[in-house]
Amino acid sequence: MFFKGKTVFFDSPPVIAGSAGVVGKKEGEGPLRNDFDMIFEDTTMGKESFELAESAMLHDSIIRALSHANKSPSDVDFVMTGDLLDQCVGSAFALKDLQIPFVGMYGACSTMALTLASCAMLVDGGARCCVGGASSHFCSSERQFRFPLEYGGQRPPTAQWTVTGAGSCVVEQRTPDTSADAIQITAIQIGTITDLGIKDANNMGAAMAPAAARTINDFLTDTQTGAEDYDLILTGDLGYTGTELLHELLEIEYHRNIQSVHNDCGLMIFDLKKQDVNSGGSGCGCSASVLCSHILGRMRRGELHKVLFVATGALMSPTSTKQGQAIPGIAHAVLLETHRS
Amino acid sequence: MFFKGKTVFFDSPPVIAGSAGVVGKKEGEGPLRNDFDMIFEDTTMGKESFELAESAMLHDSIIRALSHANKSPSDVDFVMTGDLLDQCVGSAFALKDLQIPFVGMYGACSTMALTLASCAMLVDGGARCCVGGASSHFCSSERQFRFPLEYGGQRPPTAQWTVTGAGSCVVEQRTPDTSADAIQITAIQIGTITDLGIKDANNMGAAMAPAAARTINDFLTDTQTGAEDYDLILTGDLGYTGTELLHELLEIEYHRNIQSVHNDCGLMIFDLKKQDVNSGGSGCGCSASVLCSHILGRMRRGELHKVLFVATGALMSPTSTKQGQAIPGIAHAVLLETHRS
Repeated sequence: MFFKGKTVFFDSPPVIAGSAGVVGKKEGEGPLRNDFDMIFEDTTMGKESFELAESAMLHDSIIRALSHANKSPSDVDFVMTGDLLDQCVGSAFALKDLQIPFVGMYGACSTMALTLASCAMLVDGGARCCVGGASSHFCSSERQFRFPLEYGGQRPPTAQWTVTGAGSCVVEQRTPDTSADAIQITAIQIGTITDLGIKDANNMGAAMAPAAARTINDFLTDTQTGAEDYDLILTGDLGYTGTELLHELLEIEYHRNIQSVHNDCGLMIFDLKKQDVNSGGSGCGCSASVLCSHILGRMRRGELHKVLFVATGALMSPTSTKQGQAIPGIAHAVLLETHRS
Repeated sequence: MFFKGKTVFFDSPPVIAGSAGVVGKKEGEGPLRNDFDMIFEDTTMGKESFELAESAMLHDSIIRALSHANKSPSDVDFVMTGDLLDQCVGSAFALKDLQIPFVGMYGACSTMALTLASCAMLVDGGARCCVGGASSHFCSSERQFRFPLEYGGQRPPTAQWTVTGAGSCVVEQRTPDTSADAIQITAIQIGTITDLGIKDANNMGAAMAPAAARTINDFLTDTQTGAEDYDLILTGDLGYTGTELLHELLEIEYHRNIQSVHNDCGLMIFDLKKQDVNSGGSGCGCSASVLCSHILGRMRRGELHKVLFVATGALMSPTSTKQGQAIPGIAHAVLLETHRS
């Protein structure tokens, strides 16, 4: 790899050999219902707890991604995953039976971009096959971050709905067998923490938008590109409120306009008018499931050729919020490309 | 990098250009008191909360490590840290002002080995300078994992005492300016989750010992070495109970005996007889502070030339334990070497 500014480029870009995005019932009723690899009508996954259900979903997405790539767990050098649960147990319990060397990561809702970017760097450095993934579950998140479901708490309009879902990608080195149409990871950028002092834990979009604006601007600057060079600039889960702020920040702070090519996984996964999700979807599983099924599917079908994936995370805990701390944000970027024929 | 079995080797080993380990008052009264880079008598660090104090300690160790390496934060391509706090806020709040691209990691008490191994792989892959680190704080851990301090809960003999401390290393590529005496990272191994069904959250040593035994055995097998080839095999924080189990497991399961060269950071940092810490020290900050000050100091002074550092983590949360789940363990290995003159 080599650097221009903060952006990392790859001489021989790693490829995504397989991917899968799986979701729960509500997500399966949304606009992307036809693209998910699996919709689980029973979001308990038959497990004793919502936490174990989340792990089962991540496990399922890894197995499906490996299957798409014609790989078995023993082919994988490193698996990198993360989630929102305390001490990342979503990942630990998903992976404990797979017997793959495990790199635990934490990036809040930016996790899918963080694990995918890290997979790309390790594959470029010599790893033969890595898996990156992330998960979240509405029910495990609600009781951990807000209230038990039974409490029936009200949510303000800026609040987002944690996606029940998971996504995983298998990243490997290009070989003579690799298809010419393979999805390549041509550049990545690891984000820097950005803290504008937002303290409202029911407005994560506002906490994350400044980080997204910064990473997008830095990436466009380092690559000397503009919005017109991309088929899609895809943020993770800014939702309605955060997306509005992102557009404003990019215009005012950086004199950039990406609106013609921008979309947000949190806006895509639900029908905001019909599904009662307030400002949109959120959670590590939001961008993970949308990217690994819908977006990569469109790339494989030749409908998109150049996608800048920028997932954002709010680096807070219930404790830090109760202690009155602001919510720092972070955004990592991954540039995905296929050859235009 | 190239692989033999699960072990990763480096053609041109990355070097540790600087490191620092800092601790609180109790740790500063222990046997290693003369080797820490800083002992904070006031373990609140003058902050409003123990959580922010932990962040301040990690921040301090990073600044000291960079200073030892004659680097500034702007020289660093990636900083990789982790901690035990929910949603890894110890790291987020430590790093938010440093403006370094941030890779959040989670490995429970194995974090120092995980971040150091990851730094080595990224530097080998082309990053110019990375920082790895980890932290823990007795007071933030107690109230999160056990009881508020004010409750005065009793602890069983197998329980360990979470270290208040942090450690960081600056890892960079070897250059013509690099000293011939530099500490090199010559090999690493990312561990695989090992779960023998231990469910007692007051006996982390037992939960982690099987993972340590497995990683040590795999590493010795892959490198075709035995205990006699090392000056020290250093585990993270198995404590008294876990160390006994490690020795037993290695003998019974793997027919290996490492006792002549083995020590454990959790046994070294406190005087177990005088300091009322039951089975010894624990927490990400235990192995981080001991490795980054005492051990690397001994290597710089030529007292140790070949150290296999194997930090272990218990991948549980208070929620998973209350739900009756077992505690999976993991252990990552880093081989540190200096030239013997």
